[in-house]
Amino acid sequence: MSSTRIVTLTFAGLLLIASTAHGGGEVIREEIHTQYETVRLVRVIGGLEHPWSLAFLPDGRLLVTERPGRLQLVEDGAASELSGLPDLHAHRQGGLLEVVLHPEYEENGWVYLTYSKGDAQATATALGRARIDGDRLADFEELFVMNRFSAPGLHYGSRLAFAPDGTLLMTIGDRGEDVRAQDLTDHAGSTLRLSDDGSVPQDNPFAGHLRAAPEIYSYGHRNSQGMFVHPLTGTIWQTEHGPRGGDELNRVVAGANYGWPTVSRGLDYRTQQQIGVGRRAEGMKDPLVDWTPEIGPSGFDVYLGEAFESWYGDFFAGSMAGSHLRRLVLVGDEVVHQEELLRDEIGRIRDVRSGPDGYLYLLTDEKDGGVYRLEPVR
Amino acid sequence: MSSTRIVTLTFAGLLLIASTAHGGGEVIREEIHTQYETVRLVRVIGGLEHPWSLAFLPDGRLLVTERPGRLQLVEDGAASELSGLPDLHAHRQGGLLEVVLHPEYEENGWVYLTYSKGDAQATATALGRARIDGDRLADFEELFVMNRFSAPGLHYGSRLAFAPDGTLLMTIGDRGEDVRAQDLTDHAGSTLRLSDDGSVPQDNPFAGHLRAAPEIYSYGHRNSQGMFVHPLTGTIWQTEHGPRGGDELNRVVAGANYGWPTVSRGLDYRTQQQIGVGRRAEGMKDPLVDWTPEIGPSGFDVYLGEAFESWYGDFFAGSMAGSHLRRLVLVGDEVVHQEELLRDEIGRIRDVRSGPDGYLYLLTDEKDGGVYRLEPVR
Repeated sequence: MSSTRIVTLTFAGLLLIASTAHGGGEVIREEIHTQYETVRLVRVIGGLEHPWSLAFLPDGRLLVTERPGRLQLVEDGAASELSGLPDLHAHRQGGLLEVVLHPEYEENGWVYLTYSKGDAQATATALGRARIDGDRLADFEELFVMNRFSAPGLHYGSRLAFAPDGTLLMTIGDRGEDVRAQDLTDHAGSTLRLSDDGSVPQDNPFAGHLRAAPEIYSYGHRNSQGMFVHPLTGTIWQTEHGPRGGDELNRVVAGANYGWPTVSRGLDYRTQQQIGVGRRAEGMKDPLVDWTPEIGPSGFDVYLGEAFESWYGDFFAGSMAGSHLRRLVLVGDEVVHQEELLRDEIGRIRDVRSGPDGYLYLLTDEKDGGVYRLEPVR
Repeated sequence: MSSTRIVTLTFAGLLLIASTAHGGGEVIREEIHTQYETVRLVRVIGGLEHPWSLAFLPDGRLLVTERPGRLQLVEDGAASELSGLPDLHAHRQGGLLEVVLHPEYEENGWVYLTYSKGDAQATATALGRARIDGDRLADFEELFVMNRFSAPGLHYGSRLAFAPDGTLLMTIGDRGEDVRAQDLTDHAGSTLRLSDDGSVPQDNPFAGHLRAAPEIYSYGHRNSQGMFVHPLTGTIWQTEHGPRGGDELNRVVAGANYGWPTVSRGLDYRTQQQIGVGRRAEGMKDPLVDWTPEIGPSGFDVYLGEAFESWYGDFFAGSMAGSHLRRLVLVGDEVVHQEELLRDEIGRIRDVRSGPDGYLYLLTDEKDGGVYRLEPVR
C-alpha cells in the first residue's frame, strides 16, 4: 500500500514539473509586461474553428462552442465533440454561438446555447438548453426563437447572462436591417429578458404593452456581443458593435432606448456620413464610451479574481477588429482608463471570461482558433 | 543656344522618369488602403537623427531640425547642415526642437527656432530667429527664454504657431515639475503669446496683472507638443502629453486653465491613482478628447489641401507611443471619428505637416529617422 502511494505522488510531481503552465497548456510567452501586471500567455488548446464562447464546468472541464456548429468538451488539452446539437444554419456570423451554465447548474445540469436557426433563405437567433450526458447533449429544449426570420449572415447578437433574480438576459442584433432596432414589436436590435424556461417575466418593462414584444428589456442596439451582469452590483454591462468608429460601452437599464439607428457616435461605413439625426437625441441613452477607431468588441467580463491584484474590478473586452484585449478601469459609471493588452499577439479576440481559478481566459476568432489563458508571473 | 536648351529639357525629363514618386524620394509602399483614401508612402529622406520639426521653404526646400542640435536643409533627397545655431544643451527631450517660418518670410527671411538653452545643471526653453544665408544662419537673435531654469531632460513643449494677427504662440511644458503648470508667474506648463520680436502683446490676457507672467496665454498644460492655428477660423488647437491614459486634445482660448495637475483624465504612471482632485473641476477646461490608452501625441495639423479629397478639413496628429498617424474628423468642436493610419509602419511620428503641394509630411522620432510623404494613389 505505502509503496503504491509513493509512486502516485512521484508521478503527480513529475506531471507538475512537465507542465510548464498552471493547469496545463503550452506557454506562448513566458513574460509579458503590462502597465501593472506581468503575465504569462498560455494556449490551453488550439485547433478550434472560430470558437465563439466558453463556459467553465464545475469539474474543471471547459465547454467551447465553434461557430460552424460544434460544441466541444475540453479536458487536459484535448477536445471532444458533443453530439445532439439542435439543427442550425451556419453562415458568416451565424452558427453555434453562446454557451452559459444555469446558475444552479450543479443541481439541474442545464447548459444554455444560442444559435442561428433556419436555412439559406432566412434565419433567426434562437435559444435552447440541454444537459450533458457523457459525449452527447440530452433533454434538449428550444426555449425561444426571435419573432422575425430574415436573410442569414449578419448581427445575431447572442450573448447571454443570468441576472441575480434568476432571469436570463440575451442580446439580439439588428440582423443587418438597422431600422428594426427601433421597432418594439421586433426582437431584433434589443436586449431580451427571459425566465430560465424562456417564458416572459411579468415585470418586464414592456410586458402588457399592446405594441411591444414583451421579452424586450432594452432596445436601439445595433449588435451587442459582449455582456455581463456585475456580481457585486447586479448592473448590466454591454459592448456593442457600432458603425465605423461607433463601437459602444453601455450600461443597460430596463426600458431604455440606446438609439440605433436614430443616433450613433459612428459614421456610415460607406459614405462617411453621420447616422440618423446625429450623435445624440433626447430620450436616447448616450454610450459611456464610443470607440473610435472601432475595436470590434466581443466578449466582456469583469475581473474579480485574486490572481491579478491590480486588475481587481476592471472590465476586460475582447477586440476583434483591433486584435487585442482591452482593460477598462471604471470609477462609478465612468471609464477613467484603458489599456491595450496582447495587441496582434494571438489574433481576433472573440470571448473573454474570468475563470474560477482567478485567471483570464480568451477565445480567438480564427480559422485555427484556440483557448488562451493569462496567468500572473510572480 | 537651341541645342543647349534641348539637352536641358531632356535631362529634366529623365529626372522625372527616374523619380518614382512625385517630388522625389523612395517609395516605401505603393498602395496603402485606408478608410477613404488610397495612399502611397514615400521616404523623402532618411538618416536623420531624431528629427523634430519641418518647415517648407518657398523654393521647395525643407528645413528639418534634428534634436541633438542640427538644422538641415533638405533638397533633392540630400541634407546639408546649416551652421550658426545658438548654443544649446541637448539631453533626453531637449535639444534643437521647433522650426517655423515667419508668415512674411518672403519679405523678411526670418526662421524661428526653439531649443533648450543651458547646461547639465539647468535648462530652459528658448526662442530665437535667424536668416538663412547660403549654408549658415545669419542675424541670429534670441527673442525669449522662459523665466525659470531647471534640471534638463523633460517637457520642453516647444511648438510654435503664428496667429492671423501676427502674434506667435509657443507651448512650454511643465519641465517635469507638475505644480509649475498652475503657477501663473512661471512660464512652465503654459501657452505663450508673443509678438514676432519676442515682446509681450499688450492685449495678452494676463498683461498688467501683478502676479502673472504677461506672456502667458493659457496655462495648466502638462506638455503640449502639437499645435496649429486653423487657417479658416483662427482657432488654436493643441495636443498635449498627459499622464498615463490622459493625452489630450484641447482648443486653446485666452486666459483659460487646462487643469494640470489639479485635474486630469489620466492616471499617475506609477501608482495608477487619479491625479490631483480628479477628472474635472469648476473653472478648468475639459479636454475635447482624452486618449486612453495614451498615444503620445506630437505634431498636429489640419489638412486643407486638394490631394486627399475625403480628408479635407480633418486634423492629423502624430503618435509616438502608438507609432501611427491619427486622423480626427470634427463637427464643430466635437471629434466624431478617428482613424489610425500607418500603425507600426514607419515608427514614432514626431511631426505632421500639410505640405504646400497638398501632400502630408511626417517626421519619425527615431535614431535613423526621416521625412516621409503621403501621396494619393489615383
